Amino acid sequence: MASTDFRLRYPLRVRWAEVDKQGVVFNGHYLTYCDIAITEYMRDIGLRYPEELLALGSDLYVRKATLDYHAGAQYDDELLICARTASLGRTSLRFLVEIVRAASPDDVLIEGELIYVNVDPATKKSSPWPLRLRDLILGYERVAPEQR
Amino acid sequence: MASTDFRLRYPLRVRWAEVDKQGVVFNGHYLTYCDIAITEYMRDIGLRYPEELLALGSDLYVRKATLDYHAGAQYDDELLICARTASLGRTSLRFLVEIVRAASPDDVLIEGELIYVNVDPATKKSSPWPLRLRDLILGYERVAPEQR
Amino acid sequence: MASTDFRLRYPLRVRWAEVDKQGVVFNGHYLTYCDIAITEYMRDIGLRYPEELLALGSDLYVRKATLDYHAGAQYDDELLICARTASLGRTSLRFLVEIVRAASPDDVLIEGELIYVNVDPATKKSSPWPLRLRDLILGYERVAPEQR
Amino acid sequence: MASTDFRLRYPLRVRWAEVDKQGVVFNGHYLTYCDIAITEYMRDIGLRYPEELLALGSDLYVRKATLDYHAGAQYDDELLICARTASLGRTSLRFLVEIVRAASPDDVLIEGELIYVNVDPATKKSSPWPLRLRDLILGYERVAPEQR
Repeated sequence: MASTDFRLRYPLRVRWAEVDKQGVVFNGHYLTYCDIAITEYMRDIGLRYPEELLALGSDLYVRKATLDYHAGAQYDDELLICARTASLGRTSLRFLVEIVRAASPDDVLIEGELIYVNVDPATKKSSPWPLRLRDLILGYERVAPEQR
Repeated sequence: MASTDFRLRYPLRVRWAEVDKQGVVFNGHYLTYCDIAITEYMRDIGLRYPEELLALGSDLYVRKATLDYHAGAQYDDELLICARTASLGRTSLRFLVEIVRAASPDDVLIEGELIYVNVDPATKKSSPWPLRLRDLILGYERVAPEQR
Repeated sequence: MASTDFRLRYPLRVRWAEVDKQGVVFNGHYLTYCDIAITEYMRDIGLRYPEELLALGSDLYVRKATLDYHAGAQYDDELLICARTASLGRTSLRFLVEIVRAASPDDVLIEGELIYVNVDPATKKSSPWPLRLRDLILGYERVAPEQR
Repeated sequence: MASTDFRLRYPLRVRWAEVDKQGVVFNGHYLTYCDIAITEYMRDIGLRYPEELLALGSDLYVRKATLDYHAGAQYDDELLICARTASLGRTSLRFLVEIVRAASPDDVLIEGELIYVNVDPATKKSSPWPLRLRDLILGYERVAPEQR
């Protein structure tokens, strides 16, 4: 998928502290980048995390994370963290992230897939997405909802 | 799989700096824990990473990482990072990690699967495992090799 | 000061993720090591942080931190994080940390000084140390209290 | 000193992974922010770290770091990392950092002082600043050089 197909393309510069002896970003830090992506995604659709989600009776928990490493980002690289909701279930969503260099956006360095589940802050159990959050995501992505 | 089925069970205490506002270890830090596991695994089979691997003409790169989050570890928890090689291909290996609390080792908090590929340090391309590394892993795990 | 003059000498192995392109631990991570030291120090004197401090009406905040870098720790180094309370004021304490390699404890890699202040968890203002905490520290260190 | 007195005022948003259970940025991460400041400072005066410094026969090592914590930054805060060279010695420089919220730049959250020393990459010993680097800093800051 081309990076231009993502509405969210968040710029981020690789920090010195994130790069290891092999000269590339340590593999775990890409999950920090993915976490920045979900924060900015929520802001972009119109909700400030976590206050405005909590006010809707919603919190987000990661249930599963998968990273495919194609090439490593290097110190001082200007990256684009591209992200979108690929599918929206009743209580979970599948969030896709592609990390590219701003200067060569067709070469995907890292692909990430995160499964987030909606959790009721009171009961700490999974629960259906608040309608407003669902509408905001569907409107932003123009994707059809799934049942699962 | 029971944590006692892993030969490597490395103790690790959760640091304050690793815990987020939700009171649990930030999701990305578990990849740091998995990375500690591969270091200790190599030491346990008899090779010091990276010097002794490099001396064999081998370096390890992560190609894919998958984490399943069942429950979060908390500040000051004493964990066991359990790890084993689940299968050994011609140029890659599948490394499984289970993270449990030392006090309740039957409750798996986090499951990790990492695909490592053997890379020739000179060419930076994937290459077959050095025989000695292969023998050390097979002897340690007593698993049959696969072809792939 | 010799590392053997510290009662707390906590062993810690340098992680891959903590080492930068220069091949040494990134300068900020030593504050994580110092933070581990205060946790273990409290445990060693007989209080589990933060529950048992909070139960005494006390929380710890860092007001000032100073690090002197003499030499860098490297990947897989076995370190000793040595720490002691150097002086105990009415509402603050001066905590000294020396980081050495276990194999050469006379060469100090890093010296740290942290000023912690006692904070009342209810008012979030500085307040005198709980007597019990004061007694535990003075008994552990056998130092004379200061007035300040 | 007012934040407007710094030529470098680099915007940075606090990440979820940087905030601890007390709801504020973990104390060690401010050294990561200071490290970002020196990178951006070098870029701003006209040198890309580390390539262009290394090409001048120069590398930077931190010798001492001091942080004063006045108040904690919180998740999603928009910060300004303000930095300047306060004095320039023969082989070292004193780098001052002030961290403020963009929305209330008069309230300094964190003050940092870092002593960097110029190191000859070949000998790994301290050596006088390259003339070009010295001129760039003096021109940028319009400060008088010191002897030390």
